[in-house]
Amino acid sequence: LRQGVPEVIYCEGKTSEQILEISRRLLHKGNNNILLTRLDQTSYDKLLQLEVEIDYNPLGRTAILKPEFNPMKYGKILIVSGGTSDIPVAEEASETLKALGCNCKKIYDVGVAGIHRLFAVKDELDSADIIIAIAGMEGALPSVVGGLVEVPVIAVPTSVGYGANLNGMTPLLAMLNSCASGIGVVNIDNGFGAAFLASSMIRRMNKFIEKREVL
Amino acid sequence: LRQGVPEVIYCEGKTSEQILEISRRLLHKGNNNILLTRLDQTSYDKLLQLEVEIDYNPLGRTAILKPEFNPMKYGKILIVSGGTSDIPVAEEASETLKALGCNCKKIYDVGVAGIHRLFAVKDELDSADIIIAIAGMEGALPSVVGGLVEVPVIAVPTSVGYGANLNGMTPLLAMLNSCASGIGVVNIDNGFGAAFLASSMIRRMNKFIEKREVL
Amino acid sequence: LRQGVPEVIYCEGKTSEQILEISRRLLHKGNNNILLTRLDQTSYDKLLQLEVEIDYNPLGRTAILKPEFNPMKYGKILIVSGGTSDIPVAEEASETLKALGCNCKKIYDVGVAGIHRLFAVKDELDSADIIIAIAGMEGALPSVVGGLVEVPVIAVPTSVGYGANLNGMTPLLAMLNSCASGIGVVNIDNGFGAAFLASSMIRRMNKFIEKREVL
Amino acid sequence: LRQGVPEVIYCEGKTSEQILEISRRLLHKGNNNILLTRLDQTSYDKLLQLEVEIDYNPLGRTAILKPEFNPMKYGKILIVSGGTSDIPVAEEASETLKALGCNCKKIYDVGVAGIHRLFAVKDELDSADIIIAIAGMEGALPSVVGGLVEVPVIAVPTSVGYGANLNGMTPLLAMLNSCASGIGVVNIDNGFGAAFLASSMIRRMNKFIEKREVL
Amino acid sequence: LRQGVPEVIYCEGKTSEQILEISRRLLHKGNNNILLTRLDQTSYDKLLQLEVEIDYNPLGRTAILKPEFNPMKYGKILIVSGGTSDIPVAEEASETLKALGCNCKKIYDVGVAGIHRLFAVKDELDSADIIIAIAGMEGALPSVVGGLVEVPVIAVPTSVGYGANLNGMTPLLAMLNSCASGIGVVNIDNGFGAAFLASSMIRRMNKFIEKREVL
Amino acid sequence: LRQGVPEVIYCEGKTSEQILEISRRLLHKGNNNILLTRLDQTSYDKLLQLEVEIDYNPLGRTAILKPEFNPMKYGKILIVSGGTSDIPVAEEASETLKALGCNCKKIYDVGVAGIHRLFAVKDELDSADIIIAIAGMEGALPSVVGGLVEVPVIAVPTSVGYGANLNGMTPLLAMLNSCASGIGVVNIDNGFGAAFLASSMIRRMNKFIEKREVL
Amino acid sequence: LRQGVPEVIYCEGKTSEQILEISRRLLHKGNNNILLTRLDQTSYDKLLQLEVEIDYNPLGRTAILKPEFNPMKYGKILIVSGGTSDIPVAEEASETLKALGCNCKKIYDVGVAGIHRLFAVKDELDSADIIIAIAGMEGALPSVVGGLVEVPVIAVPTSVGYGANLNGMTPLLAMLNSCASGIGVVNIDNGFGAAFLASSMIRRMNKFIEKREVL
Amino acid sequence: LRQGVPEVIYCEGKTSEQILEISRRLLHKGNNNILLTRLDQTSYDKLLQLEVEIDYNPLGRTAILKPEFNPMKYGKILIVSGGTSDIPVAEEASETLKALGCNCKKIYDVGVAGIHRLFAVKDELDSADIIIAIAGMEGALPSVVGGLVEVPVIAVPTSVGYGANLNGMTPLLAMLNSCASGIGVVNIDNGFGAAFLASSMIRRMNKFIEKREVL
Ligand SMILES: Nc1ncnc2c1ncn2[C@@H]1O[C@H](COP(=O)(O)O)[C@@H](O)[C@H]1O
Ligand SMILES: Nc1ncnc2c1ncn2[C@@H]1O[C@H](COP(=O)(O)O)[C@@H](O)[C@H]1O
Ligand SMILES: Nc1ncnc2c1ncn2[C@@H]1O[C@H](COP(=O)(O)O)[C@@H](O)[C@H]1O
Ligand SMILES: Nc1ncnc2c1ncn2[C@@H]1O[C@H](COP(=O)(O)O)[C@@H](O)[C@H]1O
Ligand SMILES: [Mg+2]
Ligand SMILES: [Mg+2]
Ligand SMILES: [Mg+2]
Ligand SMILES: [Mg+2]
Ligand SMILES: [Mg+2]
Ligand SMILES: [Mg+2]
Ligand SMILES: [Mg+2]
Ligand SMILES: [Mg+2]
Repeated sequence: LRQGVPEVIYCEGKTSEQILEISRRLLHKGNNNILLTRLDQTSYDKLLQLEVEIDYNPLGRTAILKPEFNPMKYGKILIVSGGTSDIPVAEEASETLKALGCNCKKIYDVGVAGIHRLFAVKDELDSADIIIAIAGMEGALPSVVGGLVEVPVIAVPTSVGYGANLNGMTPLLAMLNSCASGIGVVNIDNGFGAAFLASSMIRRMNKFIEKREVL
Repeated sequence: LRQGVPEVIYCEGKTSEQILEISRRLLHKGNNNILLTRLDQTSYDKLLQLEVEIDYNPLGRTAILKPEFNPMKYGKILIVSGGTSDIPVAEEASETLKALGCNCKKIYDVGVAGIHRLFAVKDELDSADIIIAIAGMEGALPSVVGGLVEVPVIAVPTSVGYGANLNGMTPLLAMLNSCASGIGVVNIDNGFGAAFLASSMIRRMNKFIEKREVL
Repeated sequence: LRQGVPEVIYCEGKTSEQILEISRRLLHKGNNNILLTRLDQTSYDKLLQLEVEIDYNPLGRTAILKPEFNPMKYGKILIVSGGTSDIPVAEEASETLKALGCNCKKIYDVGVAGIHRLFAVKDELDSADIIIAIAGMEGALPSVVGGLVEVPVIAVPTSVGYGANLNGMTPLLAMLNSCASGIGVVNIDNGFGAAFLASSMIRRMNKFIEKREVL
Repeated sequence: LRQGVPEVIYCEGKTSEQILEISRRLLHKGNNNILLTRLDQTSYDKLLQLEVEIDYNPLGRTAILKPEFNPMKYGKILIVSGGTSDIPVAEEASETLKALGCNCKKIYDVGVAGIHRLFAVKDELDSADIIIAIAGMEGALPSVVGGLVEVPVIAVPTSVGYGANLNGMTPLLAMLNSCASGIGVVNIDNGFGAAFLASSMIRRMNKFIEKREVL
Repeated sequence: LRQGVPEVIYCEGKTSEQILEISRRLLHKGNNNILLTRLDQTSYDKLLQLEVEIDYNPLGRTAILKPEFNPMKYGKILIVSGGTSDIPVAEEASETLKALGCNCKKIYDVGVAGIHRLFAVKDELDSADIIIAIAGMEGALPSVVGGLVEVPVIAVPTSVGYGANLNGMTPLLAMLNSCASGIGVVNIDNGFGAAFLASSMIRRMNKFIEKREVL
Repeated sequence: LRQGVPEVIYCEGKTSEQILEISRRLLHKGNNNILLTRLDQTSYDKLLQLEVEIDYNPLGRTAILKPEFNPMKYGKILIVSGGTSDIPVAEEASETLKALGCNCKKIYDVGVAGIHRLFAVKDELDSADIIIAIAGMEGALPSVVGGLVEVPVIAVPTSVGYGANLNGMTPLLAMLNSCASGIGVVNIDNGFGAAFLASSMIRRMNKFIEKREVL
Repeated sequence: LRQGVPEVIYCEGKTSEQILEISRRLLHKGNNNILLTRLDQTSYDKLLQLEVEIDYNPLGRTAILKPEFNPMKYGKILIVSGGTSDIPVAEEASETLKALGCNCKKIYDVGVAGIHRLFAVKDELDSADIIIAIAGMEGALPSVVGGLVEVPVIAVPTSVGYGANLNGMTPLLAMLNSCASGIGVVNIDNGFGAAFLASSMIRRMNKFIEKREVL
Repeated sequence: LRQGVPEVIYCEGKTSEQILEISRRLLHKGNNNILLTRLDQTSYDKLLQLEVEIDYNPLGRTAILKPEFNPMKYGKILIVSGGTSDIPVAEEASETLKALGCNCKKIYDVGVAGIHRLFAVKDELDSADIIIAIAGMEGALPSVVGGLVEVPVIAVPTSVGYGANLNGMTPLLAMLNSCASGIGVVNIDNGFGAAFLASSMIRRMNKFIEKREVL
């Protein structure tokens, strides 16, 4: 267990039994605040046998066992996402942030098809310390956000789309080619990874400040 | 020669001699307003032997032999493009429009990295009958334009970019996946094709109106 | 709601419950003529609870809630398609046109394998204002149509085919490379997008003429 | 040396010296009718040192050393091609046929952009025993030919095109997906391979008939 | 109905009802020898209602309605295939040949992993007029066959394999790059197309000979 | 000009004349600290006409006009890179950081082929606030770094490699799939973008602390 | 039956009946030590009818009929793998080694995300004669292993991952580009192939030594 | 310097000056037997300044500085290659083997187009301890070799070919899908890597035997 960072179980491709067993082992070792991602309903139901508190998010397909939140003091993360179908990825990101001790604000449904909704929240965008921008289809949202504000942007392409979308490869490639400078990209649908990166930056900032406050 | 549409010579992969000879043959048949695209400087110089009027655009790599403009009465086409490097494609489009009897207005350098420049021209966008939107990199411009206005949009991806841009495949795929409804896409760097499509629509509209005016 | 354009719900990846709820919300806001695309039978059955008039097309997987057709005065759109398997995409296009106030004529089964059927309708092709050409396999139909007539062509590749068809990428790429000039291409299976683009052009033409008629 | 089939030297990636040396060696072994493909001007000039008769085709980039034509008695091969830029591939095919003892007829510039030119030669198409159809861009020509006639078709995609043409991959994929039944496809720009396949079929037919004639 | 060539129904993506109805229509028009490909068990069972003779091949997923074989007089087609899993494609080819009036000989399980089995049948290979070579995995079989004999080869890649096989794209690409000269390639799993091409060549040969026999 | 961020000229695909002219224009507007990237020797030589101080880095292909460094107070950025051929990308990153007011430490030649060199600098890695990890070939370096330390990692794939490296697509894809959590990836060879992202994070942190210091 | 090498049945895409029948045939011919790979539970259950000893590994999806182990005298093979999800591929490899008469040691869960676990077994790595390194995601494990030790490495990419993992193509490409020298790569998930290659090398070594021992 | 393994300089993308300097540094450290790969003529000429013995192979584009061969006692490596154009890769492999202390035998021009040449050397193939099989085009050679003999095979795809060869990706993919069991594949044109892997196995075998001989 790395200090400050909870254990994470990636459930995709694991049986309900395997997930239950790994969870039990980690709990026995004394862990709490254990994050499970890509957890389907059936596997969640199985976990109820553990008889511990579980914070379950069916939309984001996540759960936190024995949740215990000690949010960090500083830093504001904003999650913005394009369409309704991108919400599960956004929820995975926000739950991961919660487990990692970061507060975040979520603004959904601000994709480029209704771009005025994005301008309406320009102040929110400006005041964030990091923005996680999530979009499928053509993946233009991080570019537009990055063109509007100076805040660092982490871009998450989603597999939302069809045909020439190529299961998310199109928004992924688009985000990597953004003409807004300095956007960091993670894998398709990887809300967890974006949140982890954002939180690691915020944690660094908090450590930095705390060290100075002690002095 | 299809009525109303001038002859076009696509010069890529042809020698200066071949281009000269095809031009001569078309002129002998009585054509004027002959459009040459993808014409480099050397081939242009060779054409001077023809001793006819030539309207040459080195940026767009186009020439019109014996130009003769009879602009159509109705219809307003707008060309918008992203960065400086997209201008040659935009010039190919505007020269093609000229040869096909369409007037157009050009607004360059309104890519998403400086998105405020695009909003500044919203009125122009709204008043166009067709918009040709040209962009490389992540190809987000047509999506943003299409999200702002109701005008039909023809999108041209350019090969501007590097690495994961894949020589323009990335903006091409992005434009095909736009979440702004109803964007028609042409091949990478194909300013000619976008202009041809736009002009054919405008011509249709003019014919329609003219027929009714006669009545 | 953008003026003249009805609300559209893209049902792919949404549950029956979500579709029902979004529909209800839009109806409550006073919308009618609401278009639903990619709607399967189960979700359609669910919508019957709404107890409003529904114009359902199982082939095109579309429905229009509280249909209300005020077809535009001018403009003739023609939909041509290749084989039997392309018909669902063609139906999606024609239903979208209906919802957007455009009349269209449909000519099916004129793919290149039976090319004489296409020549038999040459007059129909010539008299259209816009042609939507839909094909899978090698996607040659828009090229052949574009080579026969001067009408603007919107090309829709379909995912019909197997093996090296790559789920529609092959006809998509082929259409983008058509040697018939000026063909605008939309995403694979995107009958909706083609219809939307065609209707936006026809709407522009109608506005133009109406403005002049008033004078 | 396989009986009836001349030696072939594929010159791409070989130095003028290597080509000269291989030619000399084959001539010393008593070969004549040696075919060289992908031969550039410089390497051809070098071959003049051999002081043998050379039948050189700069357009097709081929040469035949000590040509000696014994055309087969039966079988009619037709080569049709799309645009001007496809002619080099067509010439490689026709020179290969010549070296292999097959007569052929060539009809150029009948691509789908000017499809009426193709219909004008329908009788020619019908009377052929094998048609080699060569095209770049979207590669629709073999499909159209195959839809018009019952003759077996060998399709050759060319690398003519740009952008989403992907150096000929697009017409290659299109030809493999033709909805005209039973088209055999060879590699991009492989005029040699198409001619070789056609000639092997014609040779088979001639052997068959000759055997019966003897009886 | 093209003379000599039976009607063909490609059943993939059609419902049992659609297949039944198309079959009935063709039978009513007086057709016999109707070929159905990609026909699953359920759809076949449905066809029993037609109460006509049906020649069904579950392995090849084909059926021939009202079969009526008038095999052509001349020409010998050989089908060779690699592994057990390639047999369905080979059966599709042989059934198509039967419906098209061609006799063929089949030699299975001669893939390169057991290459001695191929040499054992060298005489058979040599005596064929056309060889259809079918293989998945790395698709080397047509190359090996083409290197052994002078007979024209039609290559069929199959989707047999996994991982970097890319659903048959790997053997397809390999066959197109064969260093054995003059191999014609058809789409992945397209046993029908290979058979159609082979039969059209054999038919040409038969017509040719018959014409001369009459004289 | 965005506050705190200098103007940047991306020189790829621009002529020496264009670069000179844009530089002159920016200088006239009163800018200093202007960063030029992808600047070749010839274009640099041309810039000497400007007669201003130029900080030129031929390895990184960058220049800073009228350099003026006001490094930020807090934050430590570390650049690590794989092999010798990755150094130009690393230099582009470090020069960009300099222009953006960030100090950085560079550790080169710590690729996985000599992995012990990486362990030798573990302390340096641990004490950084952000690590920019640059690698070509299989792109494993960011994964290894991310597995060793808890610091946020920005990964830059380079086009160093050949064959199945696919011009950098292989390390790009590898970095996006890292099993070390939370790595942000930028485009191939995009040292500029990685530096820009890192500096925007560090700037955020500095602003944050400064605001608190004032209180 | 090749001497020393048992018969292998690859069960993917075969029915339980086919697998049973092939097994029966091989047993009747007197084979023992028959290896079945990609065997699912249902097909395994069917095999119980054979009433022979079966060594079944559900994790590796393998079975050995009439197992009979005569392990070779010399040579030590080590299997290392990344994450839990790679274990089935590792088990396929170890079962194949067993059937081929090789002993092996397995070390699981030493992926780069927990790289310290790999260093902990450095002595084991050093003392192996061949290492089979198995990993999905970014596929960095073989590079890291190859950088640490001088032992020959056979790399197996797995299909573990999502999005830009492209079903294992990403680790496959990464392994082919390893900057650790001399890594041999097999197909995605091909534990069998890696084991076969390793065992053929070990067998060679044993033969070599045995021959000398006799003298 | 790893024991027994000489230093290697990969010269691609390095200037003559850089290569000279790295060579000098390594010589100063006391190295001999330094291998340079991908070395062009100009860079070689530059190295003459070093005034040490250089073993240069222009075909393989390799050089060995201060060559010093202590061939290992046991083990026989065979290099087989397809066509003339594959020879440079084969030479790179054989020079690498020489530098690494391995003797090898080379058999060129045994590609599948002239497959009888391969059978003629079956005894040679059988008696080898490892075979390095090198081929471009469709990459069938390793499969054929692997099907003929039981010796372990290392496969090297080359970039020889055009069009659908995709610069060597086609033979690379084919080799990874070989139905001959247990073939290890290296990167396109990577003669060095194949030789390194082969030599590491042979070295292992020698160490093993030597250890036992001492006892
Ligand atoms: N820039 C361009 N991109 C694509 N197609 C073009 C372009 N310029 C001209 N064309 C097409 O090329 C045809 C002429 O080709 P060609 O006969 O080879 O000169 C014209 O009729 C146009 O349809
Ligand atoms: N244009 C071509 N495209 C593909 N293969 C060719 C071509 N010309 C010749 N070949 C083949 O290349 C072989 C000769 O190759 P090489 O021995 O390298 O000269 C001939 O036997 C032909 O099979
Ligand atoms: N090496 C680089 N890679 C990617 N983008 C860059 C690079 N250098 C500069 N840029 C971006 O390119 C923009 C300038 O482009 P331009 O106006 O065409 O000179 C800058 O604002 C940066 O965002
Ligand atoms: N898991 C596997 N992956 C790849 N090839 C395999 C595998 N298992 C067995 N094989 C190969 O498949 C052959 C048997 O194929 P089959 O005759 O179709 O059962 C064996 O000789 C092996 O070469
Ligand atoms: Mg920004
Ligand atoms: Mg719009
Ligand atoms: Mg047209
Ligand atoms: Mg036909
Ligand atoms: Mg042959
Ligand atoms: Mg870490
Ligand atoms: Mg090593
Ligand atoms: Mg073998």
